[in-house]
Amino acid sequence: MKSLLLAAHGSRRESSKEEVRQLTAQLDARAGKRYQSVNCAFLEMAEPSTPDGIEACIQAGAEEVIVLPYFLSAGRHVIEDIPRELAGKQKEYPHVPIRLAPYLGSAEGITELLLGVAE
Amino acid sequence: MKSLLLAAHGSRRESSKEEVRQLTAQLDARAGKRYQSVNCAFLEMAEPSTPDGIEACIQAGAEEVIVLPYFLSAGRHVIEDIPRELAGKQKEYPHVPIRLAPYLGSAEGITELLLGVAE
Repeated sequence: MKSLLLAAHGSRRESSKEEVRQLTAQLDARAGKRYQSVNCAFLEMAEPSTPDGIEACIQAGAEEVIVLPYFLSAGRHVIEDIPRELAGKQKEYPHVPIRLAPYLGSAEGITELLLGVAE
Repeated sequence: MKSLLLAAHGSRRESSKEEVRQLTAQLDARAGKRYQSVNCAFLEMAEPSTPDGIEACIQAGAEEVIVLPYFLSAGRHVIEDIPRELAGKQKEYPHVPIRLAPYLGSAEGITELLLGVAE
């Protein structure tokens, strides 16, 4: 079974972290057969870290982990930090595929979503 | 005719600004009959500002302007700055409705988009 891990930036504001956690809970509730579980992780200023989030998925029995950067642009976190953290965990667990999904800002459906928001 | 204005944060990185401009061009190309035009504006570190972006839409003949905050969480920019800038322009142009759309992170379709990204 696949697990989805939303890798968010993190924030000093509690409300912003809470927003990511609530979105994650919604994703988990709506995942159906697509994912065994949906969890979130943070790059900074919140727990768990991305490596700890991947670890938790594997400990919970995930046979594949998809890491989805919850970012709008391809900055350093998306280009360097998340792939490096992912690669470290992949080395630790060579038999569990850990795959990087496109970051949100580059997702296929984002244009239709934005064009539909105000309708 | 309605115009859509994507209100992004802005960044020091040229590539990040360029990413927003390219997305805006894609939205403009795909808008069809939904919007007369799609443009972008930035809160910081890039031009045009949101008020200047609204102004440009009105000068180009927009009969309604939809301002869509291109943000993932409801921080100060989304809660205070963008609504204040919008209200200032609305006062200047009382006969052109200037409407605030939900910010991206709260958009209805975001859960399905995220669940589908890695499929």
